Order: sequence, then C-alpha cells, then structure tokens
Amino acid sequence: MLVVMQSDATPEQIERVSQVIRDLGFTPEPIPGKTRTAICVLNNPGAVDPNHFVGLPGVKEAIRVSKPYKLVSRETHRDGTVIRVGQAVIGGGELAVIAGPCAVESEQQALTIARKVKASGASLFRGGAFKPRTSPYSFQGLGEKGLDILVRVREETGLPIVTEAIDHEVCDLVEEKADVIQIGARNMQNYTLLRRAGRAAKPVLLKRGMSATIEEWLMAAEYILNEGNRQVILCERGVRTFAVHMRNTLDLGSIPVVKKLSHLPVLVDPSHAAGIREFVAPLAKGAASVGADGLMIEVHHEPEKALSDGPQSLLPEEFDRLMKEIKR
Amino acid sequence: MLVVMQSDATPEQIERVSQVIRDLGFTPEPIPGKTRTAICVLNNPGAVDPNHFVGLPGVKEAIRVSKPYKLVSRETHRDGTVIRVGQAVIGGGELAVIAGPCAVESEQQALTIARKVKASGASLFRGGAFKPRTSPYSFQGLGEKGLDILVRVREETGLPIVTEAIDHEVCDLVEEKADVIQIGARNMQNYTLLRRAGRAAKPVLLKRGMSATIEEWLMAAEYILNEGNRQVILCERGVRTFAVHMRNTLDLGSIPVVKKLSHLPVLVDPSHAAGIREFVAPLAKGAASVGADGLMIEVHHEPEKALSDGPQSLLPEEFDRLMKEIKR
Amino acid sequence: MLVVMQSDATPEQIERVSQVIRDLGFTPEPIPGKTRTAICVLNNPGAVDPNHFVGLPGVKEAIRVSKPYKLVSRETHRDGTVIRVGQAVIGGGELAVIAGPCAVESEQQALTIARKVKASGASLFRGGAFKPRTSPYSFQGLGEKGLDILVRVREETGLPIVTEAIDHEVCDLVEEKADVIQIGARNMQNYTLLRRAGRAAKPVLLKRGMSATIEEWLMAAEYILNEGNRQVILCERGVRTFAVHMRNTLDLGSIPVVKKLSHLPVLVDPSHAAGIREFVAPLAKGAASVGADGLMIEVHHEPEKALSDGPQSLLPEEFDRLMKEIKR
Amino acid sequence: MLVVMQSDATPEQIERVSQVIRDLGFTPEPIPGKTRTAICVLNNPGAVDPNHFVGLPGVKEAIRVSKPYKLVSRETHRDGTVIRVGQAVIGGGELAVIAGPCAVESEQQALTIARKVKASGASLFRGGAFKPRTSPYSFQGLGEKGLDILVRVREETGLPIVTEAIDHEVCDLVEEKADVIQIGARNMQNYTLLRRAGRAAKPVLLKRGMSATIEEWLMAAEYILNEGNRQVILCERGVRTFAVHMRNTLDLGSIPVVKKLSHLPVLVDPSHAAGIREFVAPLAKGAASVGADGLMIEVHHEPEKALSDGPQSLLPEEFDRLMKEIKR
Repeated sequence: MLVVMQSDATPEQIERVSQVIRDLGFTPEPIPGKTRTAICVLNNPGAVDPNHFVGLPGVKEAIRVSKPYKLVSRETHRDGTVIRVGQAVIGGGELAVIAGPCAVESEQQALTIARKVKASGASLFRGGAFKPRTSPYSFQGLGEKGLDILVRVREETGLPIVTEAIDHEVCDLVEEKADVIQIGARNMQNYTLLRRAGRAAKPVLLKRGMSATIEEWLMAAEYILNEGNRQVILCERGVRTFAVHMRNTLDLGSIPVVKKLSHLPVLVDPSHAAGIREFVAPLAKGAASVGADGLMIEVHHEPEKALSDGPQSLLPEEFDRLMKEIKR
Repeated sequence: MLVVMQSDATPEQIERVSQVIRDLGFTPEPIPGKTRTAICVLNNPGAVDPNHFVGLPGVKEAIRVSKPYKLVSRETHRDGTVIRVGQAVIGGGELAVIAGPCAVESEQQALTIARKVKASGASLFRGGAFKPRTSPYSFQGLGEKGLDILVRVREETGLPIVTEAIDHEVCDLVEEKADVIQIGARNMQNYTLLRRAGRAAKPVLLKRGMSATIEEWLMAAEYILNEGNRQVILCERGVRTFAVHMRNTLDLGSIPVVKKLSHLPVLVDPSHAAGIREFVAPLAKGAASVGADGLMIEVHHEPEKALSDGPQSLLPEEFDRLMKEIKR
Repeated sequence: MLVVMQSDATPEQIERVSQVIRDLGFTPEPIPGKTRTAICVLNNPGAVDPNHFVGLPGVKEAIRVSKPYKLVSRETHRDGTVIRVGQAVIGGGELAVIAGPCAVESEQQALTIARKVKASGASLFRGGAFKPRTSPYSFQGLGEKGLDILVRVREETGLPIVTEAIDHEVCDLVEEKADVIQIGARNMQNYTLLRRAGRAAKPVLLKRGMSATIEEWLMAAEYILNEGNRQVILCERGVRTFAVHMRNTLDLGSIPVVKKLSHLPVLVDPSHAAGIREFVAPLAKGAASVGADGLMIEVHHEPEKALSDGPQSLLPEEFDRLMKEIKR
Repeated sequence: MLVVMQSDATPEQIERVSQVIRDLGFTPEPIPGKTRTAICVLNNPGAVDPNHFVGLPGVKEAIRVSKPYKLVSRETHRDGTVIRVGQAVIGGGELAVIAGPCAVESEQQALTIARKVKASGASLFRGGAFKPRTSPYSFQGLGEKGLDILVRVREETGLPIVTEAIDHEVCDLVEEKADVIQIGARNMQNYTLLRRAGRAAKPVLLKRGMSATIEEWLMAAEYILNEGNRQVILCERGVRTFAVHMRNTLDLGSIPVVKKLSHLPVLVDPSHAAGIREFVAPLAKGAASVGADGLMIEVHHEPEKALSDGPQSLLPEEFDRLMKEIKR
C-alpha cells in the first residue's frame, strides 16, 4: 500500500496518516518527493484496505500494491490445479469439453443429445434443471425432475453431469445428484451460494459475471476455496460492453491473464458469448488456441423447439465437425 | 415481433417462418419489401421470444416490438405508485431521503448517526447488518445483532428502517424486523431472493445491477410484483463503464427513462456511485434536479473508523448542509 | 512513479531498474517490503513514462503517481478560467447557454431559431456548417456557405457564434468567421486539429470523446494550451457504455471531477446524450445542479424537417420553458 | 424501416407518419396489431434515417431493417476482396503478417528489426513515422525522415511498408513513399482523412476505433470505398471496456462477424490489445484460429530503449517462435 499525499499536505497530515498506519499494526515509511510525499505501508501481512486512508485530510490517493486474494493465487500454489471428475480431467494440458443442451427438457431429449456429444468426444454433459431467466414468464427449468433425468443420462452414458445451482438450497440437490456444481454469471457474487458451494464435496464451475473484473472473479473463487473446497473451475462466457454484434463480448484475453494469476483451470463458453449458432465454432477454436483448459458448448438436436437458447445451440453434426477441427 | 428475412430467402423459408408463427397460435403477416421480406407477428397477447425465429434458415433478425414487462409498466398503471412507510412517503412528488451508515457497527454508532440525520430531515434510516463484500476477508456485518440495533434505532427515533437481505433466508429476518427490504446490486438477478421478496408484506428497495439495462432492471422488479408485492422502489446507484474517475458511472439519464416506462418510484444513491465523499453532494443535487423521487445517502460521524465505505460517507454536518441546499 | 518488483525479484533485477532510473536522470529509492520491494522514482521534473520499466525482468507494475498534464491542471492555476466572447461569459459562476440547430440549413432557418433562443436567454448561438457524419451518404453541412449564414446571424442578433471545425483547413475558415471553434467528440484526439486550434486567436470548445477518460480529455486540452491558446472550454456530451436507453450515457459525475482537476470551464450538451427530445430538459436541469458552467442545447423550430438530429432538438417553446425553469 | 406507433396513437398521428413517408418518396404500409400499429416503409432504395420519425407525435420507435452500408457489404460483393502489395497477399485464405516496431527510431533500428522479421516470415514491415500520442510531451515520431528510413528498409529487404497517416496532408507523403496507408484507431472517424485515403492509389489499413461498433467501422470503410479506393484492409485492435487486465479488450468475435457482413479482409493487432509482451502470443494464436486474414505485430530488438510501446513489443526471438507455432 502506498498512500500518496497532496502536494500541499502539511506535516501534521502526514503524521496523522502515519499514525493510522501504526494503529493498524503496520509500519509507515514516508518517502519525500520533489512535489509530494508518499507513505509506504510496510510489515502488513496481507492486503490493506485503501479506505483507511482515502478521505483523510491531505491524502490524494491510496494505491494498492498487493493482490487481495491468496488461496487462488499462483503465488501460493505454483502448479496448475487438475480436477478429475469420473473419467474427465480438467486442467493439466488436455482440452476438456462439456457439452449438452441449455436446459433439460425431457429424458428423451437429454439422452439423445448426450449420446451424440459423447460419440463426438465430449467428456462431460451439461444441462440446466434450474434456469435463471431474465423474465418470470420464461421457462424456469424442470427442477428436481430435471436432475433425475441427468442422473439417468450419467447412468446410461457414463458422462459426469454439470448443472447449475441457483441458490444455496438448490445446491443441496445439485451436490447430491450431479458431479460438478455450476454457478452462473448472475450469481457470481451471491456470497451465500458461494459459501455453500465451498462446503460441497463436489467441484464447482464458476462463471465470470457479466461485468466482473478478473480480480472480482478470482475473489468469488476465493470465497469457495476459503470454505475448504479447492476444486474450482473458472469459466469465461463473455462480458457486457457497448458492442452489439454478439450477445456478449468474449474476452479471450482473460484466459492467459487468469492462467498467470491463478492456478485454477479456466474454460470458455463460446455459446453464451455468441448468442447465435454460426459464431460458436470460430470462438471455440479461438478459445482453444488462446490456452483455455476446455470448452463448454451448447448442443441441441432440435434447436428450433428448444425451450431456451435454441439459436445458440450447435446441431450435433456441427458439434461433431467442430470437435474434429479442434483435435487437429 | 418482426421477423426480417435475408434478401435471398426462398418462399419456402418464408412459409416455414409463417408456420412457426401459426404453431405458436399467432398470425403471420408477410410484408414484401424491395430487397427483403419481413413477417409481422400479429395477435400475440404478450411479448414473443425472438429465439423462436433466430437461427431458422433464411432469417436475418427477429426484432421485438413490445416490451417484455407488464406489471411494472406505466402502460398498465398510468399513475405513479406512492409507497408509505411509517411517516415517510416515497413517490408522488416529494423527495424522500434515506440516510445512515453503510454498515451497522454498534448501537451507539447507529443511534448517534440516526439522531443527526433525523435532525437534518432524513425520513428513513439505512444501515447494513448483512453486508455482501467482494472479499471473504472483509467485515461481513453484525448479522442478526445488527438487525436488533436497527430495531432500537427505530424505537428511539421513529425512523423506518431500510436494510439489505442478501439471500432468501436472511429475507425472513429482514422482513420481520425492518421496514423496507433492500436488494443490492449484486443480487438484482438473484431470482430466488426476488421471489421471496415478492411474497413479503414489506416494501422492497431494488438497486440496479452493476451492468443491468433498464429492461433487465424492470424485469427484476417484475419478478417481485408477479409474486404479489406491488411495493417496489427502484434505486439507481451507478453502472460499470470504462470510466475510472468515480467508482461507478452514475447514470442519471436512467431516471426520466424509468419514470416514463414504469409507475414505480425511483431513487438515486450518489454515495456508491461517487465512492468518495467530496463528489456525493454534487451528484445528489443533480439527482434531485433530474427528477428522482428520493436519495439514499451514506452518513458516518467517524468515517475514518468505519468498517466499510468510510471514504464515501458524508459527515453529519456535510449531510445537513446538503439537505439545506436541496430544500432550497 | 513507483516501480513494484515481483516477490521473487533478485537483487540484480532491482539494481537494473535503479540503473534505468539513474540513466533517465532521476533518483531511485528502493523500499524493501515484507513480500516485495518497491522502488520510488524521485527528482523527476514531470510524469515518467511507465513503459521504461514495464517488461524489465522482475518488474511487476509501474504505478504513476503524478498526473501527466500540467497547463490544464488546477495545481498550476488555482482560479477557474473565465472566457469572454462578446457579451457572453463562460466560467466564473454564471450558467452560459449555447443554443441553436444541429446544422445550419438556410439563412431563414438559422435566423428564425437565433431570434427565438436569444429571446429566451441564450448567450451564444450554435449551428454546424461542416458536419461529421457516420455515413458518407448523410447531409454533410452547407460548408463555407453555412459559415456565411452564421456571420449574418451574429450581425443581426449580436450572439457570438460557436461552430465546428472538422479538420485543420476548415479551422482556418472557422477561426476567421466564427467566435468559438468547436472540436467534436470524434476529433478529440485529432492532434493535427488540436495543434491548429492551439494556434488560433479564438476560444476552443472541446467535446469529450465517445470513450475518453477524464485524463485523455484533459490531455487533449493540454495539446491546445501547449500551443499557446489558453481559452479552452470543455464539454461533456455523454459516453458510450452498454446502456441503450439513451443515445449516450451522460456522465454528470465528470463535472465535479473536472472542476477539481482543472481550471477550465466545463459545459454539458444534454441533446447529444439524450438523442430524443423529451429527455433533454431533465438532463439539462441535472447538469446545472451538478455544477456545470453552462449548457449547449439543440433547438429547431421544425425538427421533423431538420437535416440532422431533429429528434433531439427542442422546440423553441420547450427551450423557453427550460430556460425559465433553470433560472429559478 | 418499421415505424412502431404508441399503443394510444390516434389515426391522425398514423396518417401523419404515412404522409412523411410519402413525402420522402417511399410507400407506407400500416400493419394494425393487437395493441399497436406499426408502419412499414416500402420502396426505399437504401437505408432510411430513423430521425425522420422519432419525435413525431404518437411514434414509439423507428426500427432500421436494412444496413446503412453498401459498397463494403458482402451482399453486393460475394467474394472476399484480396489485396496484393508487392509479394504480399492479404485476404483469400493465407495469413498475412505485418511486423515491425511501433515507431521508426533510426535507420539502424528499423533495418535490424526488418531483417529479423523477414527471416521469421513476416510479409510486410510496419513502423510509425508520424505518431499520434495522448500526450503532447511524448515522442511524436521522426516525421518525413522516418518515411525515408522506411523507404530504405523496403529497398534492402523488399518488404512492403505499412505506416500511419495522421492527417490528410501527411497522407500525401505516406501515399507517395509507403505501400499501405494506415489509419489509426483515433482517426477512424476523421472523415477528411478517410476521404483523402479514398482518393489514394495505395491500399488503406483501417483500424477499428476505441469504441466503434462494427457498423461504424464498416461505415468508415464505406467512406474510403465511396471515393473510389476499393483496397481496404480492416484491423481489429481491441476496444475499450470496463476490463482493466489488458490495455484493451480484444474483441475476437468481431472477426467472424465482419467476415460475414463484409467482403473486406480483416487483420488483428494483438500488440495494442495486450499492452504487455507476454500476452501477445496467446492473442495472436487465438486471432489466427478465429479466422483473421492476418496479424499486425510489434517487434523490437531493444524494447527497454524503445521510444514508444516497448513493453508490448515482442523480441525478435519471441516473434520467431510465434511464427513457427502459428504455421503449425
């Protein structure tokens, strides 16, 4: 932490800041400059809240030097985390592919799609049973019945199941029946849910929030790790910007940055970013090349009948073609 | 809904879209243009999901013409909603002011501030007992003990209490003890919480999400109204943009737009937008002039000791000065 | 400038950074911290480019402490700049109002509007003769003929003329014939034009770019002052964000920030932000309350026939009403 | 164009809109819906300006159906444009690589880098002689002397030269001496410069503006084509968003969208997006996989001494490694 004083700060104001630092148990080290003084905070064990200084008389800025996260940081855990779910491996150099429909609609629908994506090489199956929807009048998912369908999909295909928990109570059900607990973009800062997922015995897939910085995203993961669950998979799915040519702006630059800052594996969901089928495959290929640990892709055999997100779902044959191209 | 076909769409593709419209129970009306055909969807009772059409062969775009919300719309409820909480009135032409600390820290702190803001003319008291924090290592609020302090503040000052519910279980406590249930920006799309608040017997103050469009914000309110609770107060608190000169970009333009589209009252929180004390008063005055129904302002008598958001809290004397300026 | 080293930086890497600082003619002051060393740059006369350090082995970040602008800074010029143009005064506590059509369309149009806005209390007249348009097929302005019409407007009404220069050659004409040279948002970083305007003998109105930070906007003004022209008026006109409810997101928070950082007067253009007539008046009132030095408002007596920006132009009677409300 | 009326629009208001459409020479076709009437505009040869209708009494929205660009559109020119510059080919399936320093600093510097990037497989050389800089106090380029150095680089290496024109007069020099005229992000809407480039006999490389939509970017290209120059190369270089982990957010999703909408080739500049060396290679690989026609990459053999953008420049050996990885 560096507290930068205004150019006309008085010695009393500098001393007051130093005293606040001492009161916090740390050591102040004033650095007199040509036009202004800056005060370094030394001997602090972790990040110091800038709010202790901003607003004090004579203070211009408080600049944070250390990162606020610890458990997710690559500084504390050099090797990349590898997560194993059934036969699937996420992290460690392989490209894991999670595929399936946006929402589970029926046993027949889920099984049809699961068989096809498995044949094409997907290693996990996705499908929403509890759907967070912008409108209260939209299809909200089959709920627990949807989870039971997912269980049958796993029984038949052997694919581990990834499905979303939309609150801490639903998380109980998802932890019991599924293999990976997904936390959606809208819930990235639902701390009750994050803490609940942090006490689960299953891995958690944490999507980046609509306008989350990398730091906020890693801090959300920190909530989970801090409760004891080290099995966190991050997932970039596009962010909200002024650009309107796709549903979201896929921030592929986040991938190398996250991989540098954190040991957690990071996937890309090109389907939610594109919002429309024809752009999913190019984004998926870009994601693989930029260093993602895997992909999460929506697939539906009858997208025009899908109860949600049909337009962005690949047809099984398109998914199959994409998988072949990516393997090459 | 208007389905715009590509310039080279075939008659078969146009007929297929028309059939999908008929299958939904609506009436297609193709409009042949010079370069392309557009198909209007008629006789639909509410908004139609564009996803039924996007992705069909030959379809270029599906353009929504009607708004997806109903209960919050001014089209269905011409007069502005007025909400009464104790002596306080929100909506209807008066400027309601909610003031208090970011977090309840102690009974003495809360009472000290409450007496001062009441004397300056605030009509409701705010204070967080359950705090959603970006870091798991930050102060998370006093919890239920904080709620009890708020109850004592109300007993002594008569000011109704506004405090945040961070999940549906906390909402039970907040509904029982407070007067207005606040839903924070991070939870604007926490649908389990929205539904729970929609079944509460107390008014709900719904903050705009960090990157929510007006439509998404109104849809979140629609979730609450749709469960039966018509007492919803909206609150603009700044959005996330590229700009870094304040914590958030206060979107005062949202106020006249919301007031046109919806009958719900809308407040402005200049404290969270500014992030720093000295800019709170100008933003508050701008908010009052642009037509907001009220203000929500953080006040602390010892901001340098505040456990959260000290730098953006006004001192009681600054708040008093602001209240006098606004009344003029 | 503070150069923060990585936690595992070697003494050699620290020395190399120190040497780079000495080579630049400044003094390095290493501050060893618990987990990492930071090196302060001392005795530098102005801002140091962080690029000297970013990318050197062992360097984590280079944090700028001083602002890169000088001439526009309030630190070097405590009193607010006041600019006089004919009878009009911009800065110094009064609210200056510039009004007129988006584009000059004919002498009769310009004169009709000028007489009305003068009667309502506008102190300067605006009208575009050279229009920067997104489409090459849109009306591009009357050019020099438009400037001559503006001259006649000034002759008849006495109102000083504000009009846009779209490149350095057009700037010659505008400097000769108009009273204030406007530089539009799209040209905020057209440095050839900024330098040309910096050599003009007339004041310059510099609009904020579509996605300019406050620092970039002030740096653009610095270009003008650096050529010798101290008469710069800033103008906020909304920025581009994810929000779609208005054409641009009017960032009224920029006003108190600019007034703190710089001595230059700053206006607000609510017309380009709103994009639609009915929201202009609330934004104008908000702008006045937040501390702007003036307003720039589009007015047209026949907006449905306007060759550009008709929908956002106030009718003269609406403008008159707004002026009365603002005076109160 | 579809003009949507308010639900309570009167027959007179509908007729007035119809009359405006007829006055424009087009045909109105009202479509009465359940809750509101929409009026289609038929027989219009090109895009209609929504501003003719927005703001008329009873009008809710005017929705554009056709795109406003023509010459750049793939609808008018199915096959992708292929641009040949010396031995280099841009478009048509090959990956063209433009490499070189941000700024030309000396003949020796330019030649050293040019020899290396040529050896690694670059097909064009880049280097700025006229630099647009945010600060008037930063290095502004060697100017015409820099152009002469670039000429010598071409003479020795045979690599065609890409360099930026910062205004229409500089464009005369660049057209004369270089092979491709670059227009930078800050000048994407400098229409005088675009028109001048449109009259040049050399290809133009048009960078996307900092916050330009795809439509605005294509409209800027339309200005160039409309003056007669069909040789336009687009270049994505990242856009400005809330995200701070890189200098700009590289919008790789723009690539497949541009390739769908337009026949022009489109490159990616990962260097300006990353802002820091270590992220350039992953972004470059992502760009190649997402379908870009080429890359523009900054390379410097002594980045710590570079006069601009050193931290984002690859070392020649890093560039060589990247080229080998991309070829695979």
